[in-house]
Amino acid sequence: MIKDNKIKLGIASYTFREFSLEDTLKMTNKVGMSYIALKSMHLPLDKTNDEILSVKNEVEKAGIKLYGAGVVYMKSEEEVENAFRYAKAAGMKTIIGVPNHDLLDLVENKVKATDIQVAIHNHGPGDDLYPSPESIIEKIKNRDKRIGMCMDIGHTQRIGLDPAKEALKYFDRLLDVHLKDVDKSTPEGDTVEIGRGVIDIQAFLKVLLANHYSGIASFEYEKDGKDPLAGLAESIGYVNGVLSLL
Amino acid sequence: MIKDNKIKLGIASYTFREFSLEDTLKMTNKVGMSYIALKSMHLPLDKTNDEILSVKNEVEKAGIKLYGAGVVYMKSEEEVENAFRYAKAAGMKTIIGVPNHDLLDLVENKVKATDIQVAIHNHGPGDDLYPSPESIIEKIKNRDKRIGMCMDIGHTQRIGLDPAKEALKYFDRLLDVHLKDVDKSTPEGDTVEIGRGVIDIQAFLKVLLANHYSGIASFEYEKDGKDPLAGLAESIGYVNGVLSLL
Repeated sequence: MIKDNKIKLGIASYTFREFSLEDTLKMTNKVGMSYIALKSMHLPLDKTNDEILSVKNEVEKAGIKLYGAGVVYMKSEEEVENAFRYAKAAGMKTIIGVPNHDLLDLVENKVKATDIQVAIHNHGPGDDLYPSPESIIEKIKNRDKRIGMCMDIGHTQRIGLDPAKEALKYFDRLLDVHLKDVDKSTPEGDTVEIGRGVIDIQAFLKVLLANHYSGIASFEYEKDGKDPLAGLAESIGYVNGVLSLL
Repeated sequence: MIKDNKIKLGIASYTFREFSLEDTLKMTNKVGMSYIALKSMHLPLDKTNDEILSVKNEVEKAGIKLYGAGVVYMKSEEEVENAFRYAKAAGMKTIIGVPNHDLLDLVENKVKATDIQVAIHNHGPGDDLYPSPESIIEKIKNRDKRIGMCMDIGHTQRIGLDPAKEALKYFDRLLDVHLKDVDKSTPEGDTVEIGRGVIDIQAFLKVLLANHYSGIASFEYEKDGKDPLAGLAESIGYVNGVLSLL
């Protein structure tokens, strides 16, 4: 539907946190996206393997690829074990996650055992575990390359960093992306439609293209939780318009 | 709200033909547009001058500039007289119109008397009066410069012409634009979200910028009449994304 396939674009289902899975899939199709990472309200972490398979089938029946889950918090060994069980049952390639620091050895073992990659999500100012891209890289730089980063460009900007520069610096660990915009480069920055905020999305997309980014960049549109479709669609249009000229 | 002001963008209210004026203004604000041309379902042609002024005030109270009306068909002298009365009462700069050929002398006199410009709208294959940009220009080329064209880029593409080339060719008569996309360059072409169809919108916008287009380019999103907001927003995002790099 969208002509431009220079970068694989998808949806982080947190965008549709106020909606059912069925509505989430309808809206994902409406905006022309064909990849999705489900958040737990759409695929609860305590579902059985059979239930997970049934959700996966529902997603794929809608013509959408269920490529990942997240953001998945992992605060205990049990939660790590369960996250990998869940992702494996769904045939997912990626867990977008936030593992406690002391669980990273276990996470690495699970990555090696399952070939499921873990993209650690930066959450900006105030986050104790992974506020910045650098805080992620410090903890994983000597680990398996399948442990990397889901760079949330909104939280990166909110901590006063340029997402384009950060993506370039840590490109070899960039496994997933949360696309959005924010209205200020400070902790108080609120999410807005892409193109209306302060992020240099053009520079960020140039870095992805120049380095042949092969992951998925997913829109996580946080504004207007009860009515996100127009702002999400505007954001997707903007990114596709920019990509058409890069 | 939208950072890019290289071209003034607006809404042709036919997009919201299934909605009230109140909802039309809300949705126009939601997608960040600040110019509107009203179609008759939102401002009926038989309204009195006082009623028109009240609608104008409602539009401006919403922070939106009521710059024009249309598409207004003019099939008799009375309809020409009324169209100018109506536009004058609303303080409009532009009538986007379709005057019968034999009324063009009268239209020209009214343009001179009122300084309201008339942008004649091309309606594509099958239209008896003005199917193509050229069919408009033929009838007006020796007339007052304030009689020109509202180029509908969808109908231009549907008749097998490139909107960018047509805009360049007749730039001195380009007074208004209807922005959209279509899925085929044939009479059967249906309107789609901008970026998903076959129009070279990048080339078209380049012509507007290179020639310092000073009019308004209005989105006329015809798909999904009962639920147009997402597709309209995607189209607006796409155009702003393209403009950000031109």
